[in-house]
Amino acid sequence: MITKNTITRASRYLRVLKNLRSLGFVRVYSPNLADALGLTPAVVRKDFSLLGMEGRKKGGYLIDELIEHLEHLLGANNPCKTVVVGCGRIGRALIESQELRREGIQIVAGFDIAPPPPEEQGEVPILPMDEFESIVDKEGIRVGILAVPSHAALEVFERMRAAGIRGFLNFTTVELKCQERCPHGCENRCVIHQVNIGLELETLFHMVHITEQRPELLKE
Amino acid sequence: MITKNTITRASRYLRVLKNLRSLGFVRVYSPNLADALGLTPAVVRKDFSLLGMEGRKKGGYLIDELIEHLEHLLGANNPCKTVVVGCGRIGRALIESQELRREGIQIVAGFDIAPPPPEEQGEVPILPMDEFESIVDKEGIRVGILAVPSHAALEVFERMRAAGIRGFLNFTTVELKCQERCPHGCENRCVIHQVNIGLELETLFHMVHITEQRPELLKE
Repeated sequence: MITKNTITRASRYLRVLKNLRSLGFVRVYSPNLADALGLTPAVVRKDFSLLGMEGRKKGGYLIDELIEHLEHLLGANNPCKTVVVGCGRIGRALIESQELRREGIQIVAGFDIAPPPPEEQGEVPILPMDEFESIVDKEGIRVGILAVPSHAALEVFERMRAAGIRGFLNFTTVELKCQERCPHGCENRCVIHQVNIGLELETLFHMVHITEQRPELLKE
Repeated sequence: MITKNTITRASRYLRVLKNLRSLGFVRVYSPNLADALGLTPAVVRKDFSLLGMEGRKKGGYLIDELIEHLEHLLGANNPCKTVVVGCGRIGRALIESQELRREGIQIVAGFDIAPPPPEEQGEVPILPMDEFESIVDKEGIRVGILAVPSHAALEVFERMRAAGIRGFLNFTTVELKCQERCPHGCENRCVIHQVNIGLELETLFHMVHITEQRPELLKE
């Protein structure tokens, strides 16, 4: 059975493999990928086996074959079209990010309850919320970014789900969950990634504190 | 032995517990916390036991005791002072975030190779890089946010490390690692959290694709 962690790693393998190919490499060995991603070679081999990818005897893995297999499996040839709901500072930073664009992420539109006037619009339009459903439907959007104030998170999440969004990148501090009996027929299959910057920072403070003040707790 | 995952969950427990206390709750049971954080009660009890927290027979856990214990363990009473290096769109969004401020994160300053002129400065100053070391030293900063363009990531990471930063929230796409033989005497004890928005989105596309097109792969 493939877990979410395996798929997350598969996305990272694909990135590294494409970099290696662009450098002229033809084959790769599990310890190389393990080094690049901070894993053990055993994890890499286990993942590859789960994902149905086989190496050659003593010859490692052929990069072209791996990329082709992973792209087919992960649907990586589809354009990555997405929308941002909530265009405050974080939402706008994402909409205007050249780095995301370079990585093949196409943000089709932003949505906000108070969109800016035409003269303040950028390359990616920021539209009023009442155009949300029609754009999602027309463009076939399945993945959305939620960057509204936290008090509005649940209501907007429900609306996005009702419109057909199934993958969520959640920048609010609310821990969203896919309810077991989903009224939108998604059968508990929404995928939600939480990006909680405040919590990440807090955890870093805690980790640094424990590493420096209580290192014995971290020792085996 | 406490792992990074336990500490991450400890930070989340602390957040939930403070919310519960503010609602007037006095005690809490492991299944409540499990529900709130999407865990199993067994994981909660295991964590609590590792962290040295004990329940009362049939009485659950006393919230005040848990908070006091966790705050002591995690150093959560220290002010969470941090800096942002790289003040492009993402960096500025973080610096100006009211939500982070409300969560008790104090961004002391931003740093950039091209800081804005005095009349364009906001509440948090954006300073030139050559003031970085002195501010970090003066304010005793141990945790920093890295939001420079990816091509500058390694160089800036090294500079932050040399200045004494030990916890990193890394918004670049470069997977930073603490080298085994660190020249800055940090003894391989830096803590690095990666926030790779492009990769998160890619993984979401892949998860949604597999959930919809190849659900058999995800079944047990």
